Amino acid sequence: MATDTRERLVLASAGLLQRQGLAATGIKQILAQAGAPFSSLYHHFPGGKDELAAEAIRISGAGFQHLVEGVWDAAPDVTAAVRAVFDGAAQTLQATGYADACPIATVALEVASTNEQLRLATADVFEAWTHAAASRLTDAGSTPADARSTAQVVIALLEGAFILCRATKSIEPMHAAGQAAIAAVRDACETE
Amino acid sequence: MATDTRERLVLASAGLLQRQGLAATGIKQILAQAGAPFSSLYHHFPGGKDELAAEAIRISGAGFQHLVEGVWDAAPDVTAAVRAVFDGAAQTLQATGYADACPIATVALEVASTNEQLRLATADVFEAWTHAAASRLTDAGSTPADARSTAQVVIALLEGAFILCRATKSIEPMHAAGQAAIAAVRDACETE
Repeated sequence: MATDTRERLVLASAGLLQRQGLAATGIKQILAQAGAPFSSLYHHFPGGKDELAAEAIRISGAGFQHLVEGVWDAAPDVTAAVRAVFDGAAQTLQATGYADACPIATVALEVASTNEQLRLATADVFEAWTHAAASRLTDAGSTPADARSTAQVVIALLEGAFILCRATKSIEPMHAAGQAAIAAVRDACETE
Repeated sequence: MATDTRERLVLASAGLLQRQGLAATGIKQILAQAGAPFSSLYHHFPGGKDELAAEAIRISGAGFQHLVEGVWDAAPDVTAAVRAVFDGAAQTLQATGYADACPIATVALEVASTNEQLRLATADVFEAWTHAAASRLTDAGSTPADARSTAQVVIALLEGAFILCRATKSIEPMHAAGQAAIAAVRDACETE
């Protein structure tokens, strides 16, 4: 049961951070959503809200990576993989009323200049995503240097398109970004 | 004096929204930073914090657009313009300890699913930026359809790179995004 409470706290936090960000998310709301007593917070997370948020960022970052890798690795080639990821992002945005996007982007921007512990958690997530994408681009024929910069381009396009799509309630920017991501990956891997 | 107070409220809000986002920014902090009495808030903004935040978003969006247009229009051609914008963004990030980036991105993500009035303010800003960039790409030889999607790609790359650079305290993603933006613009305008 103790483990369940811990997991519920992390999952409740991850969902709230994705939907409304860090500053809007209070301890009381996390506990209510997790169905957990106040004492459980400091029992499982002696560092309080920041320690819980750091773990939520890492867990949801790893979860999103797992999701994207599943889509990517099911595609027949790297171009089709990138197309599937951006098409999937567009479909998810539409299906969720433009709510479900990157789980950590809001928090990443909120904490970048104000909370070093949480900034490092977001940096670790983005670095893990970059590494995962770059290794797949290397497998597809890219040089390691091109693979890393192209992975950053693909992630930047996805993150930037999430902002534009959510703000304008349109998937048009995601489709434009997807085309650009395909062009960048094709160029790096020299596939036709 | 009345006009000055109004302006100070908007500028104080814009600065706080850029650095820490909406939820972390309280009315008291805005008033203190603006040196304005509580009564002035509802005198100038009967709609309260949301009305003030909406104006701050529009003003800082227009200010950022003006800044980028100045850099863009001073360049000899469209490729040099895009390079100058991304190089300038990288230099500003470094010079400000990765604090100064997009003035409205944090708020845009915070409000996208929670505050329709402010979501619309961010949508208007992104649409104005897209229009401004697209018209310059059309002038440089792009078709209107390519100009619009390429403008969205350039803005998505800039926004996405801001997130990655701020999170990782590195300008590497901005340089990668700049190269991709140049390639997209060159492709759309068929310049060599």
